[in-house]
Amino acid sequence: MTSVSEIEIIDALKLKTFDNHYQNIIQGIGDDGAITSINPDYHLVTTTDAISEGVHYPKGIEAKAIGHRCLAVNLSDMAAMGAKPLWASLVFSRPSIDQMWLEQFISGFSELANKHHVTLIGGDTISGPELFSVTLQGIVPKNKSIRRSTAKNGDLVYVTGFLGNASQGLKIIQEDKKNSSSEKLIEDFLYPNPRLKESSVISRFATSMIDISDGFYSDLQKVMKASNVGAEIKISDLPISESLLKKMPRVDAVNAALFGGDDYELCFTIPREFKKDFHEDYQLTNSTCITCVGEIKQKNLLLLDDNNKEFKLSGRAFEHF
Amino acid sequence: MTSVSEIEIIDALKLKTFDNHYQNIIQGIGDDGAITSINPDYHLVTTTDAISEGVHYPKGIEAKAIGHRCLAVNLSDMAAMGAKPLWASLVFSRPSIDQMWLEQFISGFSELANKHHVTLIGGDTISGPELFSVTLQGIVPKNKSIRRSTAKNGDLVYVTGFLGNASQGLKIIQEDKKNSSSEKLIEDFLYPNPRLKESSVISRFATSMIDISDGFYSDLQKVMKASNVGAEIKISDLPISESLLKKMPRVDAVNAALFGGDDYELCFTIPREFKKDFHEDYQLTNSTCITCVGEIKQKNLLLLDDNNKEFKLSGRAFEHF
Repeated sequence: MTSVSEIEIIDALKLKTFDNHYQNIIQGIGDDGAITSINPDYHLVTTTDAISEGVHYPKGIEAKAIGHRCLAVNLSDMAAMGAKPLWASLVFSRPSIDQMWLEQFISGFSELANKHHVTLIGGDTISGPELFSVTLQGIVPKNKSIRRSTAKNGDLVYVTGFLGNASQGLKIIQEDKKNSSSEKLIEDFLYPNPRLKESSVISRFATSMIDISDGFYSDLQKVMKASNVGAEIKISDLPISESLLKKMPRVDAVNAALFGGDDYELCFTIPREFKKDFHEDYQLTNSTCITCVGEIKQKNLLLLDDNNKEFKLSGRAFEHF
Repeated sequence: MTSVSEIEIIDALKLKTFDNHYQNIIQGIGDDGAITSINPDYHLVTTTDAISEGVHYPKGIEAKAIGHRCLAVNLSDMAAMGAKPLWASLVFSRPSIDQMWLEQFISGFSELANKHHVTLIGGDTISGPELFSVTLQGIVPKNKSIRRSTAKNGDLVYVTGFLGNASQGLKIIQEDKKNSSSEKLIEDFLYPNPRLKESSVISRFATSMIDISDGFYSDLQKVMKASNVGAEIKISDLPISESLLKKMPRVDAVNAALFGGDDYELCFTIPREFKKDFHEDYQLTNSTCITCVGEIKQKNLLLLDDNNKEFKLSGRAFEHF
């Protein structure tokens, strides 16, 4: 039996399902969300992300975190497109459900939905394997969505928040090593905070954007590939939290920041000449830190500059934590 | 552990996830699809239906039928709303995939998508439990969607095609009793034919519509409940195929027609005064049979008239085949 990768599945589906039936598809498969034209002033943005026990979260975590997570991962995609989320459809599949579990799941889902003014408009409930899938629809002013494919040589590379916390929080849960010093990391894994408020300012300046779900190193390369550019990242500038540095040597924290998944921070590019205006506008309404971590380069390479030496990728790095 | 029903899950989600954030929701949870306002001339219709092995189809059926099915069930919902499908998002979750299985799945999905001019715009692929979910987006001229809640006393109740074939096809597969006389029934289960072409004429005349996925008896009651009406159905008028009558006594075929699921035919109501025009227009472009099977009544009851006697519901009927 030949195993097939996610990329191969997507490519095969793209190939066979023609996209020329209707001319109003601005962006099909290949970004954080699809963009379709349906209004003279706005584009419709649609994201679909599913989570499954043992794949996206470990067995036994609290139901509230699962309800939060299935919506949060989609809100994060919506933020990465620079769009405003409006309507959610939920596929809720679980072999059996008790009342208390359901109430917790719903409180996690609905608190986040209400915070971001998202309404549940439909979906499906199944007595089946544990899997939760959300399709989120939102709007963005016409031609104002932020894509992966439009980073330009010389743009500054930014990230929101801190990198690496979530993957280490997950590891602590998996290894059952929870203590008072790991609470923040666990919280960052269980309750990712979609950066919609931040995105509303960022998207006025950014040339490209992606959300960091598979790890900064991996997701930045998706931007590079789509934009046909490279990047140089300064390792010393990566935003690493005190909580993470307390738990491990700096080199391990750097590896977590580069390769750890589940951060759901935004990675975006800003033209150098907008830097001052961007920082001023951003700080007026946002408290989440933003950090310039490098620059887009012409050559299709991802260089990791560790104090003027190339950062050595450890074998461990590729385990993707 | 208290078990929670699908209705309870939906009600709990509706209650907690407010629908007053954005005024442009015309129809939220509670119909075959959600209707949202996003264009001066068109409404957006969104349907989400997932299928899972052992719940919606038996283990071991051909991959092509699974690819067909996950899209077909959504196209059927779209037809029931009177809308034109445009864009699909697919969640593809399976523990492992070999190349040939994937090719068959994609051929089932894409042949149906291309037939109805639907484009795959996104989704998610997961190495997880076998489950396939589609969210379909379509459009309908403003205020021309057909809802469940608008059947009127005196309207004629119609169905497309034949009832009961699919549930018996499923039974034959499950009992491994396939022979040459069961091919049509098996085909009707494996490859449901969404009634979009039929819907485009029906929706110009219908006061209400639903697709028959849970069985005619059950789905008609959803229309009755939403519209606050009752209905009288003539058992002798139920459209039952020769293929089904060859396999079982008439009374069993009637039970299959009433209670068998998976037909994906349309059930709709037509004002009596439009009957002639409707039939004329329908027959100009459609060959699928349509049958008037009864009438909407004021009183909130579902009467089954079996040659002027009440049809006796057998215990077996409630097993929902």
